[in-house]
Amino acid sequence: MDTRLSPNRERVERVREALARHAAAALLVPSADPHLSEYLPGRWQGREWLSGFTGSMGTLVITPTQAALFADSRYWVQADKELQGSGITLVKIPTTAASHHIDWLAQQLQRGDVVLADGQVLGLAGAQQLRQALDAQGVQLRTDLDLLAEVWPDRPALPVAAVYAHAAPQAPEPRSTRLARVREAMARQGASHHFVSTVDDIAWITNLRGADVEYNPVFIAHLLIDATRATLFVGAGKVPAALATQLQAEGFALADYAQAAPALAALPAGSVLLVDPRRITLGFRQQVPSAVRVVEAINPSTLFKSRKGEAEAGFVREAMAEDGAAMCEFYAWFESALGHERISELTIDEKLSAARARRAGFVGLSFSTIAGFNANGALPHYRALPSAYSWIEGNGLLLIDSGGQYLGGTTDITRVWPIGTVSAAQQRDFTLVLKAMMNLSRTRFPRGTLSPMLDAIARAPLWAEGIDYGHGTGHGVGYFLNVHEGPQSISKAVPEATMAMEPGMITSIEPGVYRPGQWGVRIENLVLNVPAETPENGAFGDMLAFETLTLCPIDVRCIARNLMREDEIDWLNRYHVMVRERLSPRVSGPAKDWLEARTQVF
Amino acid sequence: MDTRLSPNRERVERVREALARHAAAALLVPSADPHLSEYLPGRWQGREWLSGFTGSMGTLVITPTQAALFADSRYWVQADKELQGSGITLVKIPTTAASHHIDWLAQQLQRGDVVLADGQVLGLAGAQQLRQALDAQGVQLRTDLDLLAEVWPDRPALPVAAVYAHAAPQAPEPRSTRLARVREAMARQGASHHFVSTVDDIAWITNLRGADVEYNPVFIAHLLIDATRATLFVGAGKVPAALATQLQAEGFALADYAQAAPALAALPAGSVLLVDPRRITLGFRQQVPSAVRVVEAINPSTLFKSRKGEAEAGFVREAMAEDGAAMCEFYAWFESALGHERISELTIDEKLSAARARRAGFVGLSFSTIAGFNANGALPHYRALPSAYSWIEGNGLLLIDSGGQYLGGTTDITRVWPIGTVSAAQQRDFTLVLKAMMNLSRTRFPRGTLSPMLDAIARAPLWAEGIDYGHGTGHGVGYFLNVHEGPQSISKAVPEATMAMEPGMITSIEPGVYRPGQWGVRIENLVLNVPAETPENGAFGDMLAFETLTLCPIDVRCIARNLMREDEIDWLNRYHVMVRERLSPRVSGPAKDWLEARTQVF
Repeated sequence: MDTRLSPNRERVERVREALARHAAAALLVPSADPHLSEYLPGRWQGREWLSGFTGSMGTLVITPTQAALFADSRYWVQADKELQGSGITLVKIPTTAASHHIDWLAQQLQRGDVVLADGQVLGLAGAQQLRQALDAQGVQLRTDLDLLAEVWPDRPALPVAAVYAHAAPQAPEPRSTRLARVREAMARQGASHHFVSTVDDIAWITNLRGADVEYNPVFIAHLLIDATRATLFVGAGKVPAALATQLQAEGFALADYAQAAPALAALPAGSVLLVDPRRITLGFRQQVPSAVRVVEAINPSTLFKSRKGEAEAGFVREAMAEDGAAMCEFYAWFESALGHERISELTIDEKLSAARARRAGFVGLSFSTIAGFNANGALPHYRALPSAYSWIEGNGLLLIDSGGQYLGGTTDITRVWPIGTVSAAQQRDFTLVLKAMMNLSRTRFPRGTLSPMLDAIARAPLWAEGIDYGHGTGHGVGYFLNVHEGPQSISKAVPEATMAMEPGMITSIEPGVYRPGQWGVRIENLVLNVPAETPENGAFGDMLAFETLTLCPIDVRCIARNLMREDEIDWLNRYHVMVRERLSPRVSGPAKDWLEARTQVF
Repeated sequence: MDTRLSPNRERVERVREALARHAAAALLVPSADPHLSEYLPGRWQGREWLSGFTGSMGTLVITPTQAALFADSRYWVQADKELQGSGITLVKIPTTAASHHIDWLAQQLQRGDVVLADGQVLGLAGAQQLRQALDAQGVQLRTDLDLLAEVWPDRPALPVAAVYAHAAPQAPEPRSTRLARVREAMARQGASHHFVSTVDDIAWITNLRGADVEYNPVFIAHLLIDATRATLFVGAGKVPAALATQLQAEGFALADYAQAAPALAALPAGSVLLVDPRRITLGFRQQVPSAVRVVEAINPSTLFKSRKGEAEAGFVREAMAEDGAAMCEFYAWFESALGHERISELTIDEKLSAARARRAGFVGLSFSTIAGFNANGALPHYRALPSAYSWIEGNGLLLIDSGGQYLGGTTDITRVWPIGTVSAAQQRDFTLVLKAMMNLSRTRFPRGTLSPMLDAIARAPLWAEGIDYGHGTGHGVGYFLNVHEGPQSISKAVPEATMAMEPGMITSIEPGVYRPGQWGVRIENLVLNVPAETPENGAFGDMLAFETLTLCPIDVRCIARNLMREDEIDWLNRYHVMVRERLSPRVSGPAKDWLEARTQVF
């Protein structure tokens, strides 16, 4: 191995020289940007540039003698490969140990040492934890320095993609109404001002969309709202002139992106500023003058956008039908081609994305397609790469997790398909996962139930057989917005009051079984919280049910029928009747034949 | 209404005079003692003495012009009655609003006001919350004054019941071993000292028991442990001389109860003291010199005692059989007497308690019997009183929730019995509750699952019909100790790491349906966490199952068979086979006939 080939070794050295200049003992580089987004613009991919590790999550720590990248199990294989020659050690952490690097740092450092971390990309809540942990060791945290600026000569500029309106009919609620709702929530908190950094919140409030990052149709901006103005801080030239005029007419002023921090710093004494400590960075928080009272609470828009209106739900049903039709077209091609031409995991991504791209309202993928055959399916976050992928041949299970962004909603679906002969053990796993998915899909629960409390209902059928899975059961899903959105989370997360289940929320249900080196099964539908009619007529409070939104056959050839109860078979048959009825009008030819064949009574 | 008849009006006035003497704006009297126990000795029932309200939970607040008692729904009827003529207002709070009185206080008070609360009975964690909330209003909390001492002339003295040894064979682990285990845990925390105020922890560590309060076989004491000594602070004369000698031989020194605080205050500089912030009062915490470093963590004994050893589990199974035999004897009498003699809820308590008292190892009841007919059964915490009770006549459901303390364990069981004709609606409720109980009883789950995450599994069958219940699904149960013990809790509690399910834990499973003014159904068994054998042989981690400990028929005459699945009927039949096999050797005559009849195949 020729280590001279890794440019990262030299980049780490440059950081060490900078550390020496600033008399600092360590640099901490998280995977984060000033908007605390899941997908980062190139400008804030400093961790990737320094280390060479391209995974979406991971924290880099560099000291004068050590360099370590902290990543959880889904990235271990990839990181091992990408870090070669960089001199950076991979520290393998459990998925839940997001603070592992803090303990590691504490061991490396001595009292009086200084740790650098750019406060512009540190979440406020996380930064407070970090500072506390370092304080306890007598170590100082310095956050006013962006060290990357000194060592990264060709650092990418801010993204420049144009901002566009998410218009009626798919955006049924005018931005002026949304702004008014936010202002009402501010008034309830006694706040005169509200600062928003999270780009999905801003997209929701403004009914604007963008293309600054992959998969999420958002744009980089901040928003400052007071009783009479709403100032959108966005890169010059990103908002077309006509749209800018329209925005001004609807109460939104535009200002340059760089003016957000000065605007916060200029808040008048006596103002009351509402910010969300999980959704604002330390850097912005520190701009707030001390004469301003800060109220910390979840962004009102985060709660508002989690509850889709009736008109939005209608468009989501449309988008689901389009998405399901694309799945039919893809699978019809796939089943006819298999055995006649050589198909790889990469081909699947290409063909499936093309099928989606032909559907009405399609804008782009909602995340990178996971197509994993056999052992690759056992890696929940697998992604086939041109440098490493499998061919679909022989026997086994093919797991495909994919989704699209449509003007009328965001989709996310996982199905598992039989290839050649499926073993009894594979059928058993498939059936248990299906039972888990159905168990939660059919559950009713009181409105306001904290979403994590529902997690065990999905797991119970797998637990009964001694099986568990390492990821959450379900994540919230946006409306032509991020495929991962809060606040609800059906998982082992610690429940909080903001996680209450409310009508209109869209959440995934995606239990799984993963057998490392062998195969993986995951079945995922999106579901909508809807009021449930019950015999009690609300005597015990309002009840909610899940309306299954995702429309695509579940392959019964993978089912071990003897493990299914009659009521479960009945649920599956009803689901397939619905899928056939809703998708039939949207497909024709081989796709329609395929739909017919795969939705027969089981 | 002649208000002169209430002595409480005058007692409240005496408090107001004392408030004036101390220039204070309010007195807060919680239901609490220096040990943060559920059952309070008379000395610390100041809230009851002042207000006249005899319920077990409730907070009294007195200001110069207002007096208010804060109590949740289970106490509203009782409190309304008992507060008459006292001039005290009942403030009805939701079960979850334990801090409601703080908000109320904040509204009554002005900046600069002083609130009195006796730090000797304020839990540390709760006191910190209280101080924070008052601080935010500019109100001062003064905790160094026991105002009751000034206004309560005939205040009861400390209880004087004798302490006795919980001896082998039912106490299989010597107290020296337990002490050594606690010291190991202290060492892992780097603690040189450990102070324990909770009386169940002390009873567990010392293998001692007492009779200082009702139902819980505990005694009032504190315990201070260091590397070589363990000092038990207990009232003079409570420990018999022979037992005292024995304790000294096993490493326990005795000191007077009043010396606990001075001993804390005398801890040498540089000591490291382990205390549990949920299980120590503010008063004791404030005794600790500033030169002592305090480590806050759950009491090691709280975790240890939640996990019963194999020998203990064996004795619990014995105690359950004795308890079940007592239930058979009672029900055999009850069914034969019903219609021939007049039976009230009070008679039931008397007869059932007498049947328990005849069983081997019986020491006392583990809580006051709840025997509620029809509408009374709809009150989860109902207690028949000589002044208010119902006769068992006509048609309906009789709910009996009862339990005993045995040398080999603590029992807690709820059954519902049909009286006359049971309606289809009652049968439906009974069957749904039974399904809920069975659903959780049959669940397997990964070792370490946080207990609150299991709560929804019991509720799901009720939720499906639009029904919920307002209490938790299950509480931990002690071993010849408190019938309510932590840390595990199958409920909507916010999960914490200390709530992990571990082998040996005993927990209740007790879902219910309550129809106010009509009837209530609750079915309760105790279950033991045991390792589960699964086909996966631990590939996905250790799995646990519940072994049902409680032995008593479930009356199938209350079941709507068409609502039961085959696998549920099978579970019930297997349970009844076990009940018959285990109880048959312990009953004879009518009780045996009754057992046979009530455990027939359904």
